Amino acid sequence: MPDQLGTPLATPLFDHIALVGLGLIGSSLARGIRRKNIAASITAIDRDPAVIERVKELGLADLATSDAVAGIEKADLVILCVPVGACSVVAELIGPHLAHGAILSDVGSVKAAVVQAVSPHLPDHVHFIPAHPVAGTEYSGPDAGFSSLFKNRWCILTPPDNADSDAVNRLSGFWEALGANVELMSPQHHDLVLAVTSHLPHLIAYNIVGTAADLETVTQSEVIKFSAGGFRDFTRIAASDPTMWRDVFLNNREAVLEMLGRFTEDLALLQRAIRWGDGDTLFDTFTRTRAIRRGIIDLGQETAAPDFGRRTPEQGQ
Amino acid sequence: MPDQLGTPLATPLFDHIALVGLGLIGSSLARGIRRKNIAASITAIDRDPAVIERVKELGLADLATSDAVAGIEKADLVILCVPVGACSVVAELIGPHLAHGAILSDVGSVKAAVVQAVSPHLPDHVHFIPAHPVAGTEYSGPDAGFSSLFKNRWCILTPPDNADSDAVNRLSGFWEALGANVELMSPQHHDLVLAVTSHLPHLIAYNIVGTAADLETVTQSEVIKFSAGGFRDFTRIAASDPTMWRDVFLNNREAVLEMLGRFTEDLALLQRAIRWGDGDTLFDTFTRTRAIRRGIIDLGQETAAPDFGRRTPEQGQ
Repeated sequence: MPDQLGTPLATPLFDHIALVGLGLIGSSLARGIRRKNIAASITAIDRDPAVIERVKELGLADLATSDAVAGIEKADLVILCVPVGACSVVAELIGPHLAHGAILSDVGSVKAAVVQAVSPHLPDHVHFIPAHPVAGTEYSGPDAGFSSLFKNRWCILTPPDNADSDAVNRLSGFWEALGANVELMSPQHHDLVLAVTSHLPHLIAYNIVGTAADLETVTQSEVIKFSAGGFRDFTRIAASDPTMWRDVFLNNREAVLEMLGRFTEDLALLQRAIRWGDGDTLFDTFTRTRAIRRGIIDLGQETAAPDFGRRTPEQGQ
Repeated sequence: MPDQLGTPLATPLFDHIALVGLGLIGSSLARGIRRKNIAASITAIDRDPAVIERVKELGLADLATSDAVAGIEKADLVILCVPVGACSVVAELIGPHLAHGAILSDVGSVKAAVVQAVSPHLPDHVHFIPAHPVAGTEYSGPDAGFSSLFKNRWCILTPPDNADSDAVNRLSGFWEALGANVELMSPQHHDLVLAVTSHLPHLIAYNIVGTAADLETVTQSEVIKFSAGGFRDFTRIAASDPTMWRDVFLNNREAVLEMLGRFTEDLALLQRAIRWGDGDTLFDTFTRTRAIRRGIIDLGQETAAPDFGRRTPEQGQ
C-alpha cells in the first residue's frame, strides 16, 4: 500500500509540537506529525495516566506526560485536542507558561465558544489560531487514531481579524502537510455550517437510536436484526464519544436550535403529506435530495461504492 | 474471491421462476437464482422496454419480455419485484393466468397493504406468500443488482394463517438458498418493525438533506464540502429510489406516523436539554445508544471497520 501522506518533509515545520489530549484526533496528529516529519519533537500530554501509558507503549511521542505546564513550555505549536468543554480549564492552566511567539490552536467542533473560553487566559505574545479538522470516526482513544485521518478532508481555521498572518500561514502549512485542505472563515459562520453538516446529524442519529431502544411493540433484538433496512447507518454516528458531543451541543446552542427548528418544520410537512396521502410532495422531496449526494461523491468526500463498500461483489456477474 | 453463495444446488427447487420487475432486487434475484441453480429456467418481465433490452444484454434470464401474462403462465414461482404501489395492478393483470398450485410472492417493504392489494385478484389455486428481504443499496436498476445481496440478511415471510405449509417451506428454501435467514411474522408486526428500522430512518434522512439544501445562511457547496462531519451518512439512504419510497410511506401510514410521533417527542426532550444547558440528559442519551450499535455488529449486520471501512489505514502505525 502506498504511503497516503507522501514523502516526509526534508525540514520540520516546527521545533516542538505539544498535543494536549491523546484521543482519536490527538493520536492521529501525533502519528501524522511523526510520519511526515512535521516537528523535530512531539510531546503528548494527557491527564489520564492510562492514556499516557498507552501512548508510551505505542511510541507516539518523544515525551508523554501528565504535566501540562512542563509539556508545553518549549513548544512553538500547542494543539488542544480535548473536548470543547475542557478548553477553558486547560487554557487557564497553560496560558501563563506558553513560549513567546508560540502558536496555540485546537481541534474543537465549535469555534465561537472556544474563542470566548480560551482567549482571556492567553498572554499577548501567543498567537491563538482556532482550527477544526472536519474528520473523524466513531472510535475514541489513542488506539483509534491513524496518520491519514485528515487526508483529503477540510480543516477550517477561524483566525481573529488581527491575527498574525505568518502564524496563520504556518498553521495552514501544518494541516496541508497532513493532507488536509485549509479554509478560513469566521467562528460564527463555522458554527452555523457545522450545525447543519455535523451537529444536527449527530443529534438526529442519537435520537432515533434512542427512540428505537424505547419501543414496547418492537423488541430491541428485532431492531438489531432488521437494521440493514437503513437504521444501522444511524447507529455509527450515534456511537461517537458522548462527552465530546455533550460539549458540542452545550457550546453551539443557538446554531443547533436554529437548524433543529428548520428540520422540525420540514419534517412536519412530510408528516402531513404522509397523513393525507400526498404522494407528489413525497416524490418531489425524495428526488431533489439526490443531487447533494452526487456533489459529495464528486468532491471526493465520500465513496461511490454501494453501501459504503460494505458489499463484496462476486466475480463474474 | 470465494463464491459467497457456496456450491450450486444439484437439483433446482423450481422449474420455472418468473420475476416481475428487474430493478435492484429483481436483477439480484435473477443473478442469485442462476448462480445457485435454483430454477430450471428464469423469465424476466418488465414493462420498460429499455430494461428488457438491458436484461438481455446482461444475460440475466432465459426469456425477457414485457408480456407479463405470457411470462408467468408456466411459472411455479412468481415474484413481484415492483414498487409497492404497483402490486395491485400487476396482480389484477396476472392473477387469472397464474398456474395451478403456483406460489406468488413479492419483495415489498410494506406487507399489510400488499396483502390487501394483491389477495382479491388471486384464484384459490394460487399460494400467496408475501415476503420482504431486508437488504438493498442506494442504487437502482438491472445493473445495480448482484447475486450476494441477500447473503446473511434477513428475509421476512408473512404467510396468511391458513397458508399451505409446503408452499411456505418451499419459499423459505428459496431464500435460504440465496444465503438469507428466514423469519415469519404477521404483516402488521412486520410493518411496525420496518417502520422503525427502515421507513423512519429513510424519512429522517430525506428530510435533513432537504433542510440542508434550503438554507440561505449556509451554501450548498459548504454543505457538500464539510459533509464528512456526519451529514454524508444520511445522503446515502436519501439517494434511494423515490418511487419505491413514496409508495412505502403511502402504504405504511399508521405505523410510520406512530414511530414519527415518538421520534418527535424524544427530539423535543433533547431540544429542551440543549436550550437549558442540561448536559446530564444529553450525556445519558448519547451513552445508552452505543449498546445497540454493538448488537448490530455482533450479529453480522454491519462492519465494525471505522467509518464503514471508508478509511484506508496506512501500514505501520
